[in-house]
Amino acid sequence: MTPPFADSPRLTLPAAGFTGIDQVWDAYREELQAVEQHIARSIDSRVPVINRAAGHLLQSGGKRLRPLLLLLSARLCRHRGAPEYEIVLASAVEFIHTAALLHDDVLDEAALRRGHETARLLWGNKASILVGDYLYTRAVDQVIRLGNSEIETTLADACRKMVEGEMLQFSLHHNVAITEADCLTVIDNKTASLMSAACALGAILSGAPPPEIAALTRFGRCLGIAFQVADDALDYAAQPDKLGKTIGKDLCEGKITLPLFHLLSACDPADRAVVARIIEQGGDAAQDLGAIIRLMERHGSVAYALDRSRHFVSLAVEELCLFPPSPHRDALELIADYVVSRDH
Amino acid sequence: MTPPFADSPRLTLPAAGFTGIDQVWDAYREELQAVEQHIARSIDSRVPVINRAAGHLLQSGGKRLRPLLLLLSARLCRHRGAPEYEIVLASAVEFIHTAALLHDDVLDEAALRRGHETARLLWGNKASILVGDYLYTRAVDQVIRLGNSEIETTLADACRKMVEGEMLQFSLHHNVAITEADCLTVIDNKTASLMSAACALGAILSGAPPPEIAALTRFGRCLGIAFQVADDALDYAAQPDKLGKTIGKDLCEGKITLPLFHLLSACDPADRAVVARIIEQGGDAAQDLGAIIRLMERHGSVAYALDRSRHFVSLAVEELCLFPPSPHRDALELIADYVVSRDH
Repeated sequence: MTPPFADSPRLTLPAAGFTGIDQVWDAYREELQAVEQHIARSIDSRVPVINRAAGHLLQSGGKRLRPLLLLLSARLCRHRGAPEYEIVLASAVEFIHTAALLHDDVLDEAALRRGHETARLLWGNKASILVGDYLYTRAVDQVIRLGNSEIETTLADACRKMVEGEMLQFSLHHNVAITEADCLTVIDNKTASLMSAACALGAILSGAPPPEIAALTRFGRCLGIAFQVADDALDYAAQPDKLGKTIGKDLCEGKITLPLFHLLSACDPADRAVVARIIEQGGDAAQDLGAIIRLMERHGSVAYALDRSRHFVSLAVEELCLFPPSPHRDALELIADYVVSRDH
Repeated sequence: MTPPFADSPRLTLPAAGFTGIDQVWDAYREELQAVEQHIARSIDSRVPVINRAAGHLLQSGGKRLRPLLLLLSARLCRHRGAPEYEIVLASAVEFIHTAALLHDDVLDEAALRRGHETARLLWGNKASILVGDYLYTRAVDQVIRLGNSEIETTLADACRKMVEGEMLQFSLHHNVAITEADCLTVIDNKTASLMSAACALGAILSGAPPPEIAALTRFGRCLGIAFQVADDALDYAAQPDKLGKTIGKDLCEGKITLPLFHLLSACDPADRAVVARIIEQGGDAAQDLGAIIRLMERHGSVAYALDRSRHFVSLAVEELCLFPPSPHRDALELIADYVVSRDH
């Protein structure tokens, strides 16, 4: 088949010897720029307002972590095929990620901003839903052009799991009977499935043997769980200017993530009753955030979540032992470390 | 490849000599029941709340017009392949249709019910967005299992056009400078693209020659335009208990459909200024609905739209001349007539 585009740069191996995560991003800048260019080119609707909205949303400063994981996995598996295909798939993965974020925004905004700035909210909601749908159709469109059923199935499975994870989380809102297994199932589906697919796709695209595909699938899955567990911990610990979002958002939405689950399990019955009431009521939980955070500090709930995150990072890194040492393996290890250490 | 399921009924030719649309539905009842069963079986998420919400929404009395179009097109093209594949594709088309309806509901509800019953609205919105996403992933999942790139491309194109049509319509809300071409472009994309794809897929699945695929693609497209133009006319004319929705909904949302476009073009400058003000203000247009409907009656705006619908029906039926007479061709002609004559 004809490559979906013809003018992408020929990609080169990065320099070895990373001393930090920033160097990883620098080393793969050329490939990531090719992804950016392909993303920009792919937003080619005949409806100008879609291009404006999608372009704005796609270019709002995402780190392109999932595309980078795909590119690195392909390198790790000695990818010899057309580099264009990597770029197309990396872009498709980013489209799916962005589409999911857009739909999440609608779910979250609806709760947080009800009654305020309705006109802007409506425009935001409509654009978020439709541009999310549009990006998803663009991803599907690009993936089917590659004509590889293993790739199609891997991405379709990830998309299904993402929706299931969101819906499961939603169905568990305000439910203080949640278990740690529930918390992990939610994020395994909601977040880890696409990171896992991104890593798997790099290997599949390279024609890697099944054990390598399986190892990278597990690497991405553990990395994704670690990423989301750390993110959930930051929601109770981050400096707002570093995380780029308001802390306590999960509490206000009734989302019970790992730190809050830990607090429910660790505190005495009287405190548990107070915490449970706050969670079950939801809505006005913002005013109780200070009390929750003080209890979490006393019981080490954020530290517990970060420990769990580090555990999944170590599981992820173990999977890389299958591969001989290389700059790409180093880069993946640095990324694994980054997901739990960022913003601390 | 293994058929996606093994216990579907062997489908049989219907009895000929239809005297009305109800007989068409009766004649293809067995096939449509197979579609129902496949739809029910396909809602197999590990997240029970998805199954409950999706099942409820999918079983809320849709006529399965698009699945029927696909089945009839396959019959018309002397389909000899596995009937299971027809059922899978017919179900996938219905999933896509339902997913789009769910997302439309969010867009529409948000405007109509703001500030009221927020909790129910939020549950409705979240379920609508996520179940819509889920149904779309189910459709993709089933289609890619057929491993036919022409089918994949046909459906992906239709999905892209549906989103583009919605977004285009949204960008034209309250804009009294809209043209008839704009109105038709919106519905060509938003509504006709999936009906066109359904008809095309029946032909593709049958291995029909390109002229037959092209004729059925055009048939579905003209039928879809006729269907939506008639639907838009009913919004200003229907008995509420027949249409199953409130009339005047489009006006309140600022949607300028063909009857309203006609009124803007046909009335004198003073009336036009009044109509334009109502459209541009939106929101409280319900109180002005009576005045708009009286003006439309005077200028024949609903009749104009129905004439246009009938025009597209006749274009659709012309495409069927390529095929020799058969009960399936008769059935498609009856459906074409039905889309403009229903509820009158």
